[in-house]
Amino acid sequence: MKNQNPILGITMGDPSGVGPEIIIKALSYKSIYEICNPIVIGDAKVIKKAIELFNNDLKINAADETKNSKFTLGTIDVYDLNNVDVDKLECGKVSSMSGKAAFEYIEAAIKLALDKKIDGTVTAPINKESIKKAGYKFAGHTEIYAHFTNTNDYTMMLAEGNLRVVHVSTHVSLRKACDLVKKEKILKTIELAHSACLGLGIKKPRVAVAGLNPHSGENGLFGDEEIEEIMPAINEAVSKGINAQGPVPADTVFSKAKGGMYDIVVAMYHDQGHIPLKVVGFDYDEELQKWKSVSGVNITLGLPILRTSVDHGTAFEIAWQGVANEDSLVNAIEYAVKLHSNN
Amino acid sequence: MKNQNPILGITMGDPSGVGPEIIIKALSYKSIYEICNPIVIGDAKVIKKAIELFNNDLKINAADETKNSKFTLGTIDVYDLNNVDVDKLECGKVSSMSGKAAFEYIEAAIKLALDKKIDGTVTAPINKESIKKAGYKFAGHTEIYAHFTNTNDYTMMLAEGNLRVVHVSTHVSLRKACDLVKKEKILKTIELAHSACLGLGIKKPRVAVAGLNPHSGENGLFGDEEIEEIMPAINEAVSKGINAQGPVPADTVFSKAKGGMYDIVVAMYHDQGHIPLKVVGFDYDEELQKWKSVSGVNITLGLPILRTSVDHGTAFEIAWQGVANEDSLVNAIEYAVKLHSNN
Repeated sequence: MKNQNPILGITMGDPSGVGPEIIIKALSYKSIYEICNPIVIGDAKVIKKAIELFNNDLKINAADETKNSKFTLGTIDVYDLNNVDVDKLECGKVSSMSGKAAFEYIEAAIKLALDKKIDGTVTAPINKESIKKAGYKFAGHTEIYAHFTNTNDYTMMLAEGNLRVVHVSTHVSLRKACDLVKKEKILKTIELAHSACLGLGIKKPRVAVAGLNPHSGENGLFGDEEIEEIMPAINEAVSKGINAQGPVPADTVFSKAKGGMYDIVVAMYHDQGHIPLKVVGFDYDEELQKWKSVSGVNITLGLPILRTSVDHGTAFEIAWQGVANEDSLVNAIEYAVKLHSNN
Repeated sequence: MKNQNPILGITMGDPSGVGPEIIIKALSYKSIYEICNPIVIGDAKVIKKAIELFNNDLKINAADETKNSKFTLGTIDVYDLNNVDVDKLECGKVSSMSGKAAFEYIEAAIKLALDKKIDGTVTAPINKESIKKAGYKFAGHTEIYAHFTNTNDYTMMLAEGNLRVVHVSTHVSLRKACDLVKKEKILKTIELAHSACLGLGIKKPRVAVAGLNPHSGENGLFGDEEIEEIMPAINEAVSKGINAQGPVPADTVFSKAKGGMYDIVVAMYHDQGHIPLKVVGFDYDEELQKWKSVSGVNITLGLPILRTSVDHGTAFEIAWQGVANEDSLVNAIEYAVKLHSNN
């Protein structure tokens, strides 16, 4: 039943990965239907297969229009692209069929959001090798979204409880990441971080800006990017009324943010932000040799449409065994609702 | 009373910092005297002041020879360098007097260890600015130890519970750290990591080697150090019988190690290793705006003498208030004992 809650398009991700199973797990939660109207953008046959294997109590409502959706707990609405040959689907393997299908779910989700048929998008994981094998040249979801929405200034925000991080750069080599630590880019990222916090309902966001070098360079002793680029960006952000602080040495800023001292951290490169988030949010089980839970959320900032995502990959090694954990997807849906309600 | 336990020299660190107070807290533990014979290498007047302020039950035994030590719970033995003018001591401030004193404790500790008067050394924090102000040109403890022991191949190991990390480089700019990611240096670090684990009593150490670039470069897409330098180093380590694995993407290797999948991680640069360790080991209290606890340990590998250290700084902002937490120092002492018993 349609209500005032936002309609969220949830892409199914790579059919060979954990996407289908974490989706049917997350969409079994009453709490999810209480805050949003979810619709899976994927392949109805694949979802049906996952239901048969892992939760036979669920029903399925497949359609190629969002207006035919039921939005009722117990029935999974699928915007059906009908693009997977289930007999040929190889679980846990790289394939061009799965790569192509996964790409098309994202493309469809973006179109539905731009056309205002849905209020936001939440993405399940894709496999980069499969995407590549299918002939697409994108480093990841973020780049696909930027392309189809003609967005230049975007960035990735990761969140795990109190710890929120945005990145000045992501999928580039570490040497290239050093080159990208430039005042203008840092300033834009600080502004995106600030807006993102406002979008989450945080009144006066405290934005910490990490240093690039160890100990923030110790006054130029180990690198001068802090003096030449980061400090000027912070000063300009402050002059624009943003509560930006730093540069804070990277090895303490995340513990401080986790402790509640900052609302968000501007990280200078991919791993600087990803390492602390995954150490906090990812729980690895030695005995089972698999992830027990992964609870982070990935949000693309700067887009004209809303997008949140799980913070883990297709996990081919455990896909279609029913053991993948849905926490990260549940968190991603909750974050999308929160962002929608404050924007 | 001297027993079979190792004699550990504990440097007092910067007199203006938290060293004196965490030392008298740690040396109030019965458990510490059950595993080692601790002697503080510092200034008896400063320790006396800390005792008067924070634990008046303790006695002090000051001498300039280790053989006069009592090694008895309740009496703190101090190898007294008598190099602080307590009336001029400014707590929580950078000063050349404190820098000089702190440096001299380290120098004395190294000499005592080289002369076999003590079995190992444990260091309290120094302040780099004070050291510099006193006229010394060293980036930190590790460099001072390397200098006075004529050591070239050394590295820092950090430990926090299951998570152990060694670094290919530490106090250099991130750009320079990229330049230092070279096969020979990585191989040496893998070997040091392997030996360190053996020294801790771990039978067949599983050594994970982190990638330098995001996603370990994705087969050369974002940087080629993994292909050109890291993989060849791993292969050579394996050919020498070491269980070295990787390159493992930096954003998951630490969660996996924390979960018990590896015994140690070889990190490519300072923050890659320091970020996860401090996120796990440092607890920041928002209300009090200070660290609740810091529990990591820092160990210098490759030296002819044993050295462990606290994994935090002088914390001038809370020094001499009696609130600094001694966990990291207790852990450092315990690690020193463990390393001594396996070597």
